[in-house]
Amino acid sequence: MILDGKKIAAEIRSELHLAIDALLREGKRAPKLAVVIVGHNPASETYVANKIKACSEVGIEAEKIALEADITEQELLEEVKRLNEDISVDGFIVQLPLPEHIRETTILSAIDYRKDVDGLTPENVGRTVQGLPSLVSATPKGIRELLARYNIQTEGKHVVVVGRSNIVGKPIAMLLMQRPYLSLPGMSAASLGNATVTVCHSKTQDLAAISRTADIIIVAAGYPKLLTADMVKEGAVIIDVGINRVEVPSDNVQSTKYKLVGDVDFENVAPKASYITPVPGGVGPMTIVSLLQNTLQAYQNHKS
Amino acid sequence: MILDGKKIAAEIRSELHLAIDALLREGKRAPKLAVVIVGHNPASETYVANKIKACSEVGIEAEKIALEADITEQELLEEVKRLNEDISVDGFIVQLPLPEHIRETTILSAIDYRKDVDGLTPENVGRTVQGLPSLVSATPKGIRELLARYNIQTEGKHVVVVGRSNIVGKPIAMLLMQRPYLSLPGMSAASLGNATVTVCHSKTQDLAAISRTADIIIVAAGYPKLLTADMVKEGAVIIDVGINRVEVPSDNVQSTKYKLVGDVDFENVAPKASYITPVPGGVGPMTIVSLLQNTLQAYQNHKS
Repeated sequence: MILDGKKIAAEIRSELHLAIDALLREGKRAPKLAVVIVGHNPASETYVANKIKACSEVGIEAEKIALEADITEQELLEEVKRLNEDISVDGFIVQLPLPEHIRETTILSAIDYRKDVDGLTPENVGRTVQGLPSLVSATPKGIRELLARYNIQTEGKHVVVVGRSNIVGKPIAMLLMQRPYLSLPGMSAASLGNATVTVCHSKTQDLAAISRTADIIIVAAGYPKLLTADMVKEGAVIIDVGINRVEVPSDNVQSTKYKLVGDVDFENVAPKASYITPVPGGVGPMTIVSLLQNTLQAYQNHKS
Repeated sequence: MILDGKKIAAEIRSELHLAIDALLREGKRAPKLAVVIVGHNPASETYVANKIKACSEVGIEAEKIALEADITEQELLEEVKRLNEDISVDGFIVQLPLPEHIRETTILSAIDYRKDVDGLTPENVGRTVQGLPSLVSATPKGIRELLARYNIQTEGKHVVVVGRSNIVGKPIAMLLMQRPYLSLPGMSAASLGNATVTVCHSKTQDLAAISRTADIIIVAAGYPKLLTADMVKEGAVIIDVGINRVEVPSDNVQSTKYKLVGDVDFENVAPKASYITPVPGGVGPMTIVSLLQNTLQAYQNHKS
């Protein structure tokens, strides 16, 4: 069965829209997200435009703060501090990557964790690990939500995570291994957790032997067709976080065509899987919606 | 082979003593640790006394700050803020548990992570997870050091961690799975990491099937004889973090005798293990020495 991230993301956007309309009818202000973009990286411009569009669709006010690439680290830090203190802003993100002369960790560490709707500050990561209320970063939050909406239980299951990045592998491992701590309003994701979790990566020996024991496999490694059918147990749940651009063979020598594929050999793995995310349309659509959910959460914490 | 934590801890204390003597000969001040204790819990009094004694043995100045159990949360927060700002204090700890009317997470979160030599603040935990310079909490730091001093490689090994506590299970899993980031002066622990890590716990199904695949097993669950010989592969490395007080059978009905045992059935597991920590004398002695190392590290960061 396909885990339809596009459909679930649309459902969540509808729910967010309703929730924010209700706030407005009560005479409250709308939640507000600020998006800082430094320089003119085309991919970043597209991501930021998509985030702002997604905000406006659900009624979140969004402000784009565009800064030139020659801004100093100190000036960007000042902007972060200003946003930390601006009571009209519930949450903000600094679009990555930053120009090379600016240290990303310095900038991220300066963001007030209560406004860190990307969930990338050490404080938020630590709070997530310790099971304290936190803003969870977009991709792991989206994966957890997708599992929850399809009522896929994780308790006692063996989850194998392939990839140990700070933004996907490590946080999703933490979320799924720990006791379910939070009761989040209007969602069942909080009941997830209690899984036995193995984290594999480029130094893992005999990945296939481990992945074959998994009830749930989450692949976030960045290699097309890394996970093949022989590596998967019959009935496993497959979550594919990869987004790889690969060439499509074509007779036309004048133009090269590309398509997006995940880290999973979808065609051959899907028949064995009980549930599987497609690429595109699986985990991807869940990430922007996580940002919207975090902005509303920051607004609610902010107001309370 | 026995992993002799007592011996290694003594070696490290000697090294620390030499390093601090060298500082003093250069005309620098000694590192200083402050230990806050609230109330008169006898176990806490003992722990604090041991920590202060360990400091004085290596030349770290230690100040005990004893507060009464009826102190308010706000007053304790003020004390934490004072210590954050006191430039004569390199690091400090607040001995747990705190009285019930004080929220531990509130107090811990208020500690400046640069002085958090217990490594328990969310900021330090998040920095450890993200591979940024951090003060690592005592037990995981001690385990890593013990493995390093015996030159036990972790790269590509399957490490099974039994227990998912915030102070042992989760952080040691993070340390051993990640790329080796830090080059720490005078120690080889930084080269550890790159392991495939599985975290098991009370909800894990068929722990024995998983532990039998492990090259290294770290048990921090708090149950005597949880890990038995049939659960261990021939040649595995066994790290026992448990400290359990069990009754010793005695003919004397008038007095009950106790002894300390770990979570591992030592007698039967030891013959199969390539390396194993005893209890007591294994991980235990490494924890206080980790605190001393962290205090020196905080001093060096502070001065630089």
